Amino acid sequence: MAKKNKEGLTIKKEENFSEWYQQLILKSELADYSPVSGSIVFRPRSYQIWEKIQKTIDSEFKKIGVQNCYFPLFIPESLLSKEQTHVKGFAPEVAWVTQTGNTELKEKLAVRPTSEAIMYDSYSKWIRSWKDLPLKLNQWNNVVRWEFKHAVPFLRTREFLWNEGHHAYSNAKDLEKDKKAILKIYSNFLKNYMALPGLIGEKTSKEKFAGAEKTYTIELILPNGKAIQGPDFHDDGQNFAKAYNIKFKDENGKEQYAYQATYAITTRMLGIMFAIHSDDKGLVIPPKLAENKIVIVPIFAKDNKKKIIGQAKKLEKELQHFNPILDVREGYSPGWKFSEWELKGIPIRIEIGPKDIVKKQAIIVKRNDGKKQIAKISNLKKIIPKILDEIQNQLRTNAEKLSKSKITKADNLSELQKAIKNKKIALIPLCKKIGCENEIKDATGGAKTLNIPLKQTSIDNKKCIWCKKQADYHVYVGKSY
Amino acid sequence: MAKKNKEGLTIKKEENFSEWYQQLILKSELADYSPVSGSIVFRPRSYQIWEKIQKTIDSEFKKIGVQNCYFPLFIPESLLSKEQTHVKGFAPEVAWVTQTGNTELKEKLAVRPTSEAIMYDSYSKWIRSWKDLPLKLNQWNNVVRWEFKHAVPFLRTREFLWNEGHHAYSNAKDLEKDKKAILKIYSNFLKNYMALPGLIGEKTSKEKFAGAEKTYTIELILPNGKAIQGPDFHDDGQNFAKAYNIKFKDENGKEQYAYQATYAITTRMLGIMFAIHSDDKGLVIPPKLAENKIVIVPIFAKDNKKKIIGQAKKLEKELQHFNPILDVREGYSPGWKFSEWELKGIPIRIEIGPKDIVKKQAIIVKRNDGKKQIAKISNLKKIIPKILDEIQNQLRTNAEKLSKSKITKADNLSELQKAIKNKKIALIPLCKKIGCENEIKDATGGAKTLNIPLKQTSIDNKKCIWCKKQADYHVYVGKSY
Repeated sequence: MAKKNKEGLTIKKEENFSEWYQQLILKSELADYSPVSGSIVFRPRSYQIWEKIQKTIDSEFKKIGVQNCYFPLFIPESLLSKEQTHVKGFAPEVAWVTQTGNTELKEKLAVRPTSEAIMYDSYSKWIRSWKDLPLKLNQWNNVVRWEFKHAVPFLRTREFLWNEGHHAYSNAKDLEKDKKAILKIYSNFLKNYMALPGLIGEKTSKEKFAGAEKTYTIELILPNGKAIQGPDFHDDGQNFAKAYNIKFKDENGKEQYAYQATYAITTRMLGIMFAIHSDDKGLVIPPKLAENKIVIVPIFAKDNKKKIIGQAKKLEKELQHFNPILDVREGYSPGWKFSEWELKGIPIRIEIGPKDIVKKQAIIVKRNDGKKQIAKISNLKKIIPKILDEIQNQLRTNAEKLSKSKITKADNLSELQKAIKNKKIALIPLCKKIGCENEIKDATGGAKTLNIPLKQTSIDNKKCIWCKKQADYHVYVGKSY
Repeated sequence: MAKKNKEGLTIKKEENFSEWYQQLILKSELADYSPVSGSIVFRPRSYQIWEKIQKTIDSEFKKIGVQNCYFPLFIPESLLSKEQTHVKGFAPEVAWVTQTGNTELKEKLAVRPTSEAIMYDSYSKWIRSWKDLPLKLNQWNNVVRWEFKHAVPFLRTREFLWNEGHHAYSNAKDLEKDKKAILKIYSNFLKNYMALPGLIGEKTSKEKFAGAEKTYTIELILPNGKAIQGPDFHDDGQNFAKAYNIKFKDENGKEQYAYQATYAITTRMLGIMFAIHSDDKGLVIPPKLAENKIVIVPIFAKDNKKKIIGQAKKLEKELQHFNPILDVREGYSPGWKFSEWELKGIPIRIEIGPKDIVKKQAIIVKRNDGKKQIAKISNLKKIIPKILDEIQNQLRTNAEKLSKSKITKADNLSELQKAIKNKKIALIPLCKKIGCENEIKDATGGAKTLNIPLKQTSIDNKKCIWCKKQADYHVYVGKSY
């Protein structure tokens, strides 16, 4: 047991979420700290999930005509500065290359915090006519934002991985169509693969992306009640086109500025998923994103070792579709092995011992709820996909319950204050004035607007929670990550 | 024709290889220059090939137990400096981050030129016992080497994309086994996918990688007779393990340093492939790496337009397995379209006109040699894979012929000088002394040793081309890129 305590989690999720999360990430070997403050090492156990995310989402992007490309990592300062709101939003967090070898550069280079500047410079060269549009390019790459807040693996790191899609259109209608398609790709992925519910909505003017006309986000709620922003989509209107001179001749030969949109999903989603599904035994992940869906643990003594391992190997081969791990290591007890694979989040454990062999059966244990069942070995291939589906659905249902339990409504300030104090997210009626948004932030000790749900219930006769005048929308408010 | 001249290549490969190459890359829309000197934009037409390369090679890596991961982009100066030979090799080309926001960093950060330093720091924490070995990690990422030589798209850029595999072993034997496997993965990929022959061998001590014990490379020969280094594999012995303190307890409880190896293939290979196969009409690429294997060009007048486009669309659907482009644009002549798709390297063109529809046939034109054939539409699905194979094989045969025509033997200095003057690569007998290697470089106006072929003919009684004493090996020598 001493060994188990050392290797397993020693803090409970309920007791101290943030300590528990740090232990989870390190002990499940998902990530490690690095000598670069604020940057992490993505170890294979997390990176392989990121690869699955990339692959699945990328194939959806391609269906709507998105093409991948790669732009330079560095952006000259003068280029970054062309769109003023944009550069103000990012400049405080930019890592600057000022020197190469022993030579000082004449102009310093930003390590990309995002690629609008460098991409749109090319767009302005490539786009001449309406025939060149839409241009739908995307990159899967790394970006650096030197935040000074405390770094947390996956959730807030100074370097992270993401997709950055950057589209240009000849009209706002085509953009609107893709906005819907892309938000759907992201939210379906969250729901159907990550087993996570999200709140889809539009950011208020105050909270929108630096340079955008409108920002749409999917917000999630962590077990500690804090909201965290997931994937986003920015409708930039013609802002960047004007700053970077992206013009085209329309079908009538008239020169116009292009309409633009950008969107992203980042490795932060990994952390959100780990945090929401995992438990005091360690990692829990949705089967659809698990690299190894099964671990087979043969239970043997010296005298029957050969026979049982033989059976287990046969099973490994039969179940190879599920990419099983076969744990035949010696010098570790079955219990120790169970704990290790629970810590590392393998969705299904199959135990096979001397009695099972005689009865041609195996014991199946679900990682998410520990429930056991006995099944005939000949049935395993048929039964396992069903159990995996069951786990996937249970995780989603639980995550939805958790999310619902953290959301409430508030129609006046004291209700809102109470909700925030109780670590909830509140849906409140609010007017558009930035003043009111600022005041409620102060009055709640820092709760911010998250987003304005795309699906709104009627706002008629609803009063702004602060100024008591007619409200413009219902908006989610909460402490955020 | 004026239009064709403007869009197509205006310089012949034979006449001015380097101008031709630049035009090819820009006009085929493979890459574009960027505002960052020495860095290029990988446009979708080249990036999609890189994705195929990644996918194919990555699945081979996984078969030998390699796992992907992601380490930070930045490396603190002190960490980079731990292996002295290594840092000396890279320091002159390092891009340094010295500032974040408006704050000067206490310690400057290298933008990774390669990741030994940052990865091995983690390895020293993770590796404790022989049970932790082998550790076979790989990254597909971007690296920066601020070279001062003239940049050429793909072939020499200050930022490039690559795989960097970094393995640690408990013994030299396991390393040796993987060395063979990885060199085979690379050379098979070059041969079977890129249709490129390579010279596999070991670098001389003078030319090996900074920090390695032994370096193995696949060298290729460009149409201008210059050699260029392709994928490589470095046997680092225990050098880095000693510098970064990577120790493990062996099965007897004795502490030992790990053995290490690294290997890489870079986006430079794209440029080599484009340069070798392409011609005066534009891009030629092996069908196996082509995103769109077919372009269908319907030839119509006003009165039969609907009918012919209808047939072409039917064909497009039938041949969807080959991801065809259907070019129904108006305002462009068939000839103009032919030229455009030749420029962009689509392996097969299918023409379908009014006569063809009557005869239920189509005209098939091969991009690589322009040969035409007529085929029944009902036969196309069966015949196309054969034609694609034929093209693939022809490209490989031609590339092999080109390579052979550039290689010669030289047994004495004047033969070598003549070979180098004639823009050839020469296989020469040489001894190990760095002095001799330096002398032949001077005597040939800069020809360097490329590598020592793994398959050697007998060196008995062969004299070193410079000192006339017993030679140690046959080695390729040539002007290199």
